[in-house]
Amino acid sequence: MLYNLVVSEKFDVKGTINDEHVMNRRNFVVKSSAGAALMASSPSYSFSIGKYAERLKVGFIGLGARGTGQLGLILNRSDIVVTALCDIDQERLLQAVDMVTTAGMKKPATFGNGPEDYQNLLLSDDVDAVIISTPWIWHTPMAIDAMEAGKAVGLEVAGAFDIQECWDLVNTYERTRTPFMIIENVSYRRDVMAVLNMVRNKVFGEIVHMQGGYQHDLRAVKFNNGSQLYGGGVEFGAKGYSEARWRTNHSVYRNGDLYPSHGLGPIANYINNNRGNRFVYLTSTASKARGLHEYIVEHPQGGEDHPNAEVEFKLGDVVTTVIKCAMGETLMITHDTNLPRPYSLGFRVQGTDGLWMDINNSIYIEGEGEPHEWQPDTAYMQRYDHPLWKKHESESVGAGHGGMDFFVLHAFVEALKHNEPMPMDVYDCVSWAAVTCMSEQSIANGSSPVMFPDFTRGKWMKREPIFGLDDRY
Amino acid sequence: MLYNLVVSEKFDVKGTINDEHVMNRRNFVVKSSAGAALMASSPSYSFSIGKYAERLKVGFIGLGARGTGQLGLILNRSDIVVTALCDIDQERLLQAVDMVTTAGMKKPATFGNGPEDYQNLLLSDDVDAVIISTPWIWHTPMAIDAMEAGKAVGLEVAGAFDIQECWDLVNTYERTRTPFMIIENVSYRRDVMAVLNMVRNKVFGEIVHMQGGYQHDLRAVKFNNGSQLYGGGVEFGAKGYSEARWRTNHSVYRNGDLYPSHGLGPIANYINNNRGNRFVYLTSTASKARGLHEYIVEHPQGGEDHPNAEVEFKLGDVVTTVIKCAMGETLMITHDTNLPRPYSLGFRVQGTDGLWMDINNSIYIEGEGEPHEWQPDTAYMQRYDHPLWKKHESESVGAGHGGMDFFVLHAFVEALKHNEPMPMDVYDCVSWAAVTCMSEQSIANGSSPVMFPDFTRGKWMKREPIFGLDDRY
Repeated sequence: MLYNLVVSEKFDVKGTINDEHVMNRRNFVVKSSAGAALMASSPSYSFSIGKYAERLKVGFIGLGARGTGQLGLILNRSDIVVTALCDIDQERLLQAVDMVTTAGMKKPATFGNGPEDYQNLLLSDDVDAVIISTPWIWHTPMAIDAMEAGKAVGLEVAGAFDIQECWDLVNTYERTRTPFMIIENVSYRRDVMAVLNMVRNKVFGEIVHMQGGYQHDLRAVKFNNGSQLYGGGVEFGAKGYSEARWRTNHSVYRNGDLYPSHGLGPIANYINNNRGNRFVYLTSTASKARGLHEYIVEHPQGGEDHPNAEVEFKLGDVVTTVIKCAMGETLMITHDTNLPRPYSLGFRVQGTDGLWMDINNSIYIEGEGEPHEWQPDTAYMQRYDHPLWKKHESESVGAGHGGMDFFVLHAFVEALKHNEPMPMDVYDCVSWAAVTCMSEQSIANGSSPVMFPDFTRGKWMKREPIFGLDDRY
Repeated sequence: MLYNLVVSEKFDVKGTINDEHVMNRRNFVVKSSAGAALMASSPSYSFSIGKYAERLKVGFIGLGARGTGQLGLILNRSDIVVTALCDIDQERLLQAVDMVTTAGMKKPATFGNGPEDYQNLLLSDDVDAVIISTPWIWHTPMAIDAMEAGKAVGLEVAGAFDIQECWDLVNTYERTRTPFMIIENVSYRRDVMAVLNMVRNKVFGEIVHMQGGYQHDLRAVKFNNGSQLYGGGVEFGAKGYSEARWRTNHSVYRNGDLYPSHGLGPIANYINNNRGNRFVYLTSTASKARGLHEYIVEHPQGGEDHPNAEVEFKLGDVVTTVIKCAMGETLMITHDTNLPRPYSLGFRVQGTDGLWMDINNSIYIEGEGEPHEWQPDTAYMQRYDHPLWKKHESESVGAGHGGMDFFVLHAFVEALKHNEPMPMDVYDCVSWAAVTCMSEQSIANGSSPVMFPDFTRGKWMKREPIFGLDDRY
């Protein structure tokens, strides 16, 4: 769940995209529009199986800790060839090239000539699909450019800055029909998938209320000593290294649920979001912001006199968001990244027949076990272990985040190879990501409710669930 | 936490107070106004210690399961004499009389001649204080009448129907200065008091976020067979017995957090609500209502054809409320009484140095134990065991709800005897109870924020914390 991209001094430390980039991007869209128009003219345009008859040609944009982690998993696959790599940091780029050649593949093309060079990667005929794992501010423009260029997109998760960029993603997808998947790995966590299985088997009866969140002490991610990945100092921005260089600034300027999808995506799948159900509105409330300032002043490398002790962090330490769904369910989502605490996504799934919580791996199902007593969830996890996990367990060993990183990339590749819909698509992506800018708006307006756009424009009423239906992906 | 008052057929099953009662009550206020005026004329009016030199004379209004439970605890005390009992159900009244005489006290006066007879109890010179444990709709009128009559009030918890009745309680208290305490027992739970001790010792650093709630499967309380206290059928209202006769109707007509204080009161004390801090606003969101209907149709005594299968329950199964406090803390409160689940008040107390949760009795304090790993809270509970519990543990054995019922009544009696402020006063009472009608309003308005009145009229800025300061009460 930790992203990492080493960025060069060319990046504005506030993460803004400069005008030059925007201009270059406009030129790029013009250049690639011929191809896009060609695609759009074919109503049933899609990736053909034949195209990947040999091996799917994948490019990577962003080769920080997260990108190289995904690269390593992709390199394990025999149905993939990595043909292109992009990062503005030459060191990361060379390291990734080495990973590819060590895996026995030929040296991929590299793109590292500044922040817009990814556009040249997208123009390559030798790339079918891209995995994008860059700082959040780049996600939407890169994904849009990739779809315009007809390169299938696997996009890492992030929150949205504005509703309009969500619409831009949706509109680009609907116009180009380029395959797009949001790489939300927690949806593939083993217990999360077993519970999906339980939900579909009505173990909990009718789902009524759920909880989830991103409760992760990121203080040593947000601050480091400028040379190591995690901790060892209280630097961020220009003096920080890796994520601390770009991610921390979001905590300086923004107050909202900055990272909703790990807690929200899995439970959204449980209630068939955008497929017979949808989010209708939310309210968000932020606590005071204390954790990051305290970390700075209490750190041996920090203190009251450290320049960063004067930074005023806008991000409330705990942001609580409540979502009402069209079918009447409520979802409570927590964002909690500034305080000392054990990692927990805090899942709770509750229906008319019982509930499950991951915090103590406990379950209660009416009529099973002792009345009013929690049971360990072990037997349920075994009984409802998802067929996908049963089938691919051995392949997932060693993959990131307890194996779930294997499954999410597996799904992207398999859906693409078989020319089938992406299991977590652009509508999933934007309905989760929109929580970020909507929560910022709600908090800024004293927790006023904010309505979700219907990004499907009504299609949610007829769309059928497709996530995790069988053992294929 | 379960109240019980057997009500006669004279009660409107919807729990409304009929016009006749209102008229009688107006007469009563006139009758008792001479006494109230006398009190008000003395600016420093208070109960004198001398008055209770021998024994505090206590009357009980409401002798259902809850009232008789409290009566039993009071009868254990040597500083109390029970002088008056009131219930509209003769059987309950006689049973309570028997309890008193069996305890070696003389036969108390009884008041059972209809729903207004409590007013005659309040006119008795032989009563110093009353414990009120009646259906919720009677709490405010009875408490106001008692304060008007100069009888110290120990009032069981309930949610408010309207902000105005909160103000009526406050205004009556401020005018009469009759001692008033809200009998919120969970505030005295052993772990809750230990955590209070930890909060005051800054174990968690600065408090940032807390959670609590009333998560209690009440289905067998809301429905019974008309003759037993709990379960055995799907009857309520006129055909129900005990709580099912009056409490269930609140789930038919109302959608909000009907019972906030058990989850909110304890954590309100942690952040010095009304004493240097206060609740500023809340939002509430209710899930769909499924649990009670399903219970009726799936019960062996119910079914699709049972008349109650047609009842539309307005109360959402899970109601989630988020409160923002003046000092920047957020509180998340859950009301969850219609679904099968183990009992849990779901406390979480989180600060800049760590957090505690009661769900798995776990704690994490930075610098203690393994980084990022939960610890069992046992050692902390022992180390920070509250002096009050250490001193009175043996007396509390056998008292209701794990001993906490002893402590809450102990506090009422001791504060009264010593002519000291009530540890949970009228401002506490109304700021907790107001959550009910405010959450109803928020839900009815699509989770719009609702502002808390400042019931202290500014005094919260200067008032000092008094709850649980030492081992006395």
